[in-house]
Order: sequence, then structure tokens, then C-alpha cells
Amino acid sequence: MKNLVLGIDVGGTNVKLGIVDAKGKILARSAMPTKPYNRNKTLLIKAIFTQVRALFNNSKISLKQLTGIGIGLPGAVDPFKGLVIFLPNIPGWKNVPLRAIFEKEFRVPVLLENDVNMITLGEWKYGAGKGKNDLLCMTLGTGVGGGLILDGQLYRGASFVAGEIGHMPINENGPHCNCGGWGCFEQSVGNRQLLEKISRIFGSTTLTIPDVHSLALKGDQKALKFFKETATHIGNGLVGVVNLLNPPLIIIGGGVSNNHRFLFPTINQVIQKRAMKVQAKLVKIVHAKLGDDAGILGARVLLAEGLKKRS
Amino acid sequence: MKNLVLGIDVGGTNVKLGIVDAKGKILARSAMPTKPYNRNKTLLIKAIFTQVRALFNNSKISLKQLTGIGIGLPGAVDPFKGLVIFLPNIPGWKNVPLRAIFEKEFRVPVLLENDVNMITLGEWKYGAGKGKNDLLCMTLGTGVGGGLILDGQLYRGASFVAGEIGHMPINENGPHCNCGGWGCFEQSVGNRQLLEKISRIFGSTTLTIPDVHSLALKGDQKALKFFKETATHIGNGLVGVVNLLNPPLIIIGGGVSNNHRFLFPTINQVIQKRAMKVQAKLVKIVHAKLGDDAGILGARVLLAEGLKKRS
Repeated sequence: MKNLVLGIDVGGTNVKLGIVDAKGKILARSAMPTKPYNRNKTLLIKAIFTQVRALFNNSKISLKQLTGIGIGLPGAVDPFKGLVIFLPNIPGWKNVPLRAIFEKEFRVPVLLENDVNMITLGEWKYGAGKGKNDLLCMTLGTGVGGGLILDGQLYRGASFVAGEIGHMPINENGPHCNCGGWGCFEQSVGNRQLLEKISRIFGSTTLTIPDVHSLALKGDQKALKFFKETATHIGNGLVGVVNLLNPPLIIIGGGVSNNHRFLFPTINQVIQKRAMKVQAKLVKIVHAKLGDDAGILGARVLLAEGLKKRS
Repeated sequence: MKNLVLGIDVGGTNVKLGIVDAKGKILARSAMPTKPYNRNKTLLIKAIFTQVRALFNNSKISLKQLTGIGIGLPGAVDPFKGLVIFLPNIPGWKNVPLRAIFEKEFRVPVLLENDVNMITLGEWKYGAGKGKNDLLCMTLGTGVGGGLILDGQLYRGASFVAGEIGHMPINENGPHCNCGGWGCFEQSVGNRQLLEKISRIFGSTTLTIPDVHSLALKGDQKALKFFKETATHIGNGLVGVVNLLNPPLIIIGGGVSNNHRFLFPTINQVIQKRAMKVQAKLVKIVHAKLGDDAGILGARVLLAEGLKKRS
């Protein structure tokens, strides 16, 4: 019998599924939209059950080979109690005992985790973080998220919401943020804010970040300046984490990180100039390797690591 | 035979020593100035040896009861190799194998640690952090230092310099800092900067922080405003750590923290207003309990915890 893990990555737009073998290879995958089930969590759970069975059927893999399920969720999760505490972008999820619900259905161990933590676990063991005991994994998208591996294990924080690098302030004064604070890192480098900035710079509301990337490739000065300024904010946002946690590695993923060619040199420069010498000397900034697969592969890692007892 | 630990707290001004029993009681203590030996590390080490023997002799405690020594040092230390990497304020210390030197002299296990980490360990087990698995301990003095207990153990960082909260930037632009960066937290709340500010506000270069405290007690508006602004900077500096690490407890010690009556309410307000809801709801800000004893007691904790293997 094979030892297969099912990874389920629940997002506000799609639910992605993947069957992962013992070597971290994704044998089969599928996806379904989340929004049709937005009003009713029971319907969403049942739709996922159906999707799981269809995935195994279609790929001719027996469910008997399934040894565990890891579910990544876009919000606050209590992995120890197996509870989804709340999901800011999917209504109606509050204190849902999702682990028990899935364990009853599939009769295998199930673990829940925050989606960015799941990506972090995936990149750590199968991606850009291989072999490291400590790292920060940052995702640049609509939200700016972060996950921490510290002393060889996922650091969740005392109420399981650690890693919110997007909401570390980078200035004492600054624009209001959805989190309730102000001057947050995300307010300078979140997708929405970058698109607004692009619209101001280029006078076009249809220009996308990949469009600006193409312009930068052609040497467009405004585009190059846009990326340099964005990278400076990212570097400034990371200096504090570098000085506080002394990580050897920062992995940057998410859509915006695809512009790494125009971002990473400046991010590095800012950190080298501004962070403390010992910390700056150690830290490497690298691009995430696994793309959308990170969350699925993270499920395999989560199951393998288990929930280390909090001492 | 009793199980006694010797704590040695090496500072730029004084070396403090204390003999700690199994319950965390300091049975005897002494201190000696550091500066006479600033030019020669061998002389400083020999002077400490003499001081140790004198402490045991004078307090009529047999050195045979000594089961371990913990040494806190104001700089970068490799606890695993037993090396003092460098001490910014005591010249001539570079890659000194201090653990081996002390083990040869006293024939007991010796562990080295950064001084703020040592204070953090002391407060964690014997002071304001009792019973917590996670905390930040911040010291407000000439330097602003920090130590982290994460998931039930001291977090040292990959090159043992984690915790540098004083050098987390609080603004993207800001005054140059000794660390080579700019806009650091310490540049707003370090002792020197606070004294400069007092001199600007009150037009006196002799007024001390305790003097301003006395004025605040009498209701002096300038003094109250000074503490409110200082506390606002401290709160702003802590919001990022609160959002990133989701700690249940922040312990604040060091000279400036003695003004907690005029600082803590505003620090709390800023964190409650500006940090993310789940993080803000959890975190408590408390005053350090052990004062100067924290570093000595930390030695006992360090010996008890040992150097957990990095997985």
C-alpha cells in the first residue's frame, strides 16, 4: 500500500486539491470554485467531499492508499483543537470543527493549518527552504502574508496568528489599513496599492503589473522606477524582521514576486545597507520555487511533522 | 551537597556575580569594575577568577557545591561553541573560547549567553514571565535590547543575534543609528536620545529622566507630554513584533521602564489601537520583576535548560 497524503488548499476563489506521494510528487490534482458555496459552509464541505472522491476515482487511485489529509485555510485556525476559528473572506465560518468533520468522512488523520503556514511548510521541505532550520516565507499578493520556521519547526504564535509581516508598520504615520492599524507594510506593497500606484504613474487603470514588467524589460524608466520604489519598501519592511529574528533565509513568493528580476537586487541592497552587519551577512533572499503547489505539498509536511507538543 | 550555580553578568561598567541555589535564591553576591581590565582580556578573566574565589570564601560557601556557571556577555556569543564572538564595548574580545577557559579553572559545566538573553531567561522562569511559553523581554537603556522565548525555549537566531528589537526601524526615513541603519526604534527611545530630547524641551542639560518623572508626578505638562510621546514610540515599535510573533506577554525592563506609571497606559493604548485584533487581545505588557538580578538568575535557567539541540 502506498502512503499518500491529500492536500486541500481552500482559497476565497478556488479550492485546490492534490494527492501527494511519499517523495513529495503530486500524482493527481483538481480544483473547484469556492464562491458558489459561499453562503453555506455545509454545502462547501460536501462539495469538497465530492471533489475528493472524484479526484481519486478519475485518477484511478484507491482511497485506501490515503494516510492523511492536510487542509490549508485562508484565516485563523486552531490546529490543536482542529477548529477553523474564522475566515475573513468566506462568510459563515466561525469555530467550525473541520478536522472532526473530515476525519469522520475519510477515517484518516486530518490536520488544519493557515494557508500561508502551509505554503511555508511546503517551501521549507520541498522548495526554496530545503535544509534550513529557520526561515521566513513571505507571500506578496492582495494580502502580504508570512510564515515562520524557527528552530526547525513552524512557529504559530500563542493564538496561532503569528507571521503577519504584512501588518508590521513601516512608518509611525501612514495610510489606514483594513487590519485596523496604519502604516502597514501591506499598504505599500499589496497588489491593490501597487495597481493604484501604477494607475497614478502611467495614467491608465487597465495596466497590470505584468504589463509594467514588460515595460521594464524594454527599459521604460517609469517602470524601472516603480519596481525600484516597490523593492525599497519591501527591503525596508524586511529589515526589522532580519534584525529581530536573524533568519538565514527569506523566501518571497506570490504574484508580485514574479517580478524578482526587477525587485530582488534592490531588496538585497536595502537589507545590506540598513540591517545589522551580522544579520545582513547571513540572510539570503530567494524566490519561492513551488508556485501554487506549495500549499498542497505543505499538507504532506504538516502530516509528517505532526503537531509538536507545546512544551 | 547543595546544587549551586554561579551567575556572572559581564557588563561594560561592572562584572556582577551571584551564587544561586536550586530555588532561584541568590545566596551571595559581589561586583567588580570592568574598566581597569579593558585593555587586556586575560587580566579581566583572571580578575573574575579571583572575584569568584573571594565570593565563595567570604560567604563561607564551598566551591565543591558549585555545579555550573552561566556567563552573560554584552555582545555576540556562540553558546554552542562556547565562544565570545565580539563585545562592542569591551575592546580586545574576539573569538575567545571563554567556556573552555572557565571549565578548565573550575571543573564544572559552563555556558555562555548574550546578556539580554540571560535577563530574558531569568524573567521567564523567576520573574514576570513565569508559566509562559512565549514572550518578548525588552530592556530600555542606553541600548534597547530584546530576548525571545518562543515555543518554550530561548530563540537565539541562526547566528545567535536574534532579539535586536532596538534596531527594528519604526520609520522608512529617520535618524542615523550606530548600527549602520537608520530610523531604528532605539533612535527614538534610547537613553541618550531621551536625554537630548529632555534638554531640548526643558532647556537644561542636567535634568535626568528621574527628574522628569518627579515633574510628571507633580502634574508638569511638559513632563507628561514627554512620557506620552516616548510611550507612543515604544508602542509603535512593539506593534510590528505583536503582529509578527503573536506573543502573549511583553516584559519591559531597564532604567527607562521605571517610569512605567507614565508609559505603560499609553503603550497599551497604542497596541490596542494599532495591532491586529487577535494579537492585541492576547498580549499583556508588564514591568520586569527582577531588576539587576535577572541576569544572575538567568544563569541558573540557562544551566537547567541546557543547549537544546537544534533539530
